[in-house]
Amino acid sequence: MTDHSTGLQLRSLIKPDGNLELSLVSVETPAPGPGEVVVRMEAAPLNPSDMGLLFGGADMTTAKAGGTPDNPVVTAQLPPAALRAMAARVGQSLPVGNEGAGVVIETGSSAAAQALLGKTVAVLGGSMYSQYRTLGTGQCLLLPAGTTPEQGASCFVNPLTALGMTETMRREGHTALVHTAAASNLGQMLQKLCIKDGIPLVNIVRSQQQVDILKGIGATYVCDSSSTTFMGDLIEAVAATGATLAFDAVGGGRLAGQILAAMEIAANRTASEYSRYGSTTHKQVYIYGGLDPGPTEFNRAFGTAWGIGGWLLTPFLQKAGPEAAQAMRERVASEITTTFASHYTKVVSLREALQLEHIAAYGRRATGEKYLISPNKGIARG
Amino acid sequence: MTDHSTGLQLRSLIKPDGNLELSLVSVETPAPGPGEVVVRMEAAPLNPSDMGLLFGGADMTTAKAGGTPDNPVVTAQLPPAALRAMAARVGQSLPVGNEGAGVVIETGSSAAAQALLGKTVAVLGGSMYSQYRTLGTGQCLLLPAGTTPEQGASCFVNPLTALGMTETMRREGHTALVHTAAASNLGQMLQKLCIKDGIPLVNIVRSQQQVDILKGIGATYVCDSSSTTFMGDLIEAVAATGATLAFDAVGGGRLAGQILAAMEIAANRTASEYSRYGSTTHKQVYIYGGLDPGPTEFNRAFGTAWGIGGWLLTPFLQKAGPEAAQAMRERVASEITTTFASHYTKVVSLREALQLEHIAAYGRRATGEKYLISPNKGIARG
Repeated sequence: MTDHSTGLQLRSLIKPDGNLELSLVSVETPAPGPGEVVVRMEAAPLNPSDMGLLFGGADMTTAKAGGTPDNPVVTAQLPPAALRAMAARVGQSLPVGNEGAGVVIETGSSAAAQALLGKTVAVLGGSMYSQYRTLGTGQCLLLPAGTTPEQGASCFVNPLTALGMTETMRREGHTALVHTAAASNLGQMLQKLCIKDGIPLVNIVRSQQQVDILKGIGATYVCDSSSTTFMGDLIEAVAATGATLAFDAVGGGRLAGQILAAMEIAANRTASEYSRYGSTTHKQVYIYGGLDPGPTEFNRAFGTAWGIGGWLLTPFLQKAGPEAAQAMRERVASEITTTFASHYTKVVSLREALQLEHIAAYGRRATGEKYLISPNKGIARG
Repeated sequence: MTDHSTGLQLRSLIKPDGNLELSLVSVETPAPGPGEVVVRMEAAPLNPSDMGLLFGGADMTTAKAGGTPDNPVVTAQLPPAALRAMAARVGQSLPVGNEGAGVVIETGSSAAAQALLGKTVAVLGGSMYSQYRTLGTGQCLLLPAGTTPEQGASCFVNPLTALGMTETMRREGHTALVHTAAASNLGQMLQKLCIKDGIPLVNIVRSQQQVDILKGIGATYVCDSSSTTFMGDLIEAVAATGATLAFDAVGGGRLAGQILAAMEIAANRTASEYSRYGSTTHKQVYIYGGLDPGPTEFNRAFGTAWGIGGWLLTPFLQKAGPEAAQAMRERVASEITTTFASHYTKVVSLREALQLEHIAAYGRRATGEKYLISPNKGIARG
């Protein structure tokens, strides 16, 4: 048995002088309580939702490498506005990484914990860019036999977000969806899920290359916002599907308002008389990302039955309740190599994750490019 | 008994050439069915919500008077964008006027209808800028003895909107309100209602004069958006009241986003640790008007638990159900000369309502200025 009493952990710290510092620290592995297990982390994705915490709003074009090869330290400057927004975390050395997968190497005394010994599990709960994590059995999702940690590393954020979108659609009385930034890892996963579940989906992307990606996995409706016919294409697709709910990862700019306007025009096509307050169909856009960090702007040319709001997975799961959430997790595990499969462009160690060339690559958040951290890669076992 | 078989009615027509035409037409008064009554209309307010239908987006600075003194006709041009938005009503001669009050002069055979004969009633249902209206008894609200039609003319739109706001607050789990354009007739009414019901209210106005108006009727929190200290004042008022719901009549510009940002800052004051997703308190702004017709713009600097949406009285009442709606109406009737009293700066006849000087005055929608149409004023009885 290896010594796992301590292990490396990636940390993000914003200092009072406005500098971000990324580094590795050695942390003790807590001994597992009765209902807990120790997981040797083998794979943890760098999701867009991780980068916000990791970079803390710093301007990563100012990043500088420091420290030693064994203990790399990266520093970068926060613009003044970002520093104000991050005031509440200044001085706190924060671990990062929402999800991952690994092998259970030690367990507490409970039967549920002991049953997991030697098993490959997907785990959720933060601090996943760590060599070892002590976690409750409730935070572990047992993967089907033969599933590798790399295959199981992204069981929660993207799969549950995709399922959360279709489930929100059902709970709020809609029957079809619009999705933006739709060629992303998540977008492709949502398209596969919608095909499997028979849900009409309108994909919005921003290049012909992205249209091709989605058509390649079987998408019916793909609208290219860089095309001169975009608004007309969107109206036709929304009319054909009857979509009245959109999930928007872009956030800034006019796209959310354009989607609502397209929904309103589509709804009014079937209206029999003029209504000065617009269609009575409720049209909703949930913004769940901020790929465009600029202001959101819209013209309210869509009547009075509309809403724009924030959407986040965790509050959705809380509202859905533990049973519904568990059912979703089990579906993910059973389809993790098909509907919910993720693909990675690069696997890096904890130390490599702090090299400027890799930061530049995964920090770009380019479509289809996704990094995986392998926290025990390249580290001599004790 | 006067001849009320026909009567004048104000009409708004958008022609295919992009001209708005306002005129009076003579219409037959339908004979009342068993459950119906004929109301001689004595008073009908020109609410902001009426002006949208009346003017149809026309540029009223281009208005020209025509016709004859007995049959005045006003024309004005629609800008091309307005004409596109109004495509569905082009060619339809539309009656106007959401609400009013009058005296029941003829009834159908039912007991409920006959009980109203000679009574003063407040009425809702469109086409109120008419001499006579045939309406179901369900559209009539019997006013307390001694109430004049002028006192009862505005029983629905503003009073039910004010009650709809406080009721929405309760139903959606909030405990205090923010209101914009708060020195309006509706705003003053909402302040009186909130004082009576013990609801903390943050009023947002745009001048010191409007601050004085609200302070004069007992307001505690009034924030002047023209002040250099506005944002700080708003944060303090929101923190003091715990308001997490706003009703916004302005619509365009940055105000809705500023309100959400103030709510987020106030919520984070009591947070014990940094949350990268912002406060978990849901913050909501409902836009119910468009005093600023420009685009809405916001920076999403308020976490993920937020919503902006349209709000309209009629769907709210439908959702609340007939019993709740009736209870609200009866409360309005019983407090129509106190909490829900309206004041008018000018009473005009149907013909006077089509004179350019009056159109310029009521079309301005200036704070505190409100016109009342008296549809039978200045018309020889047959």
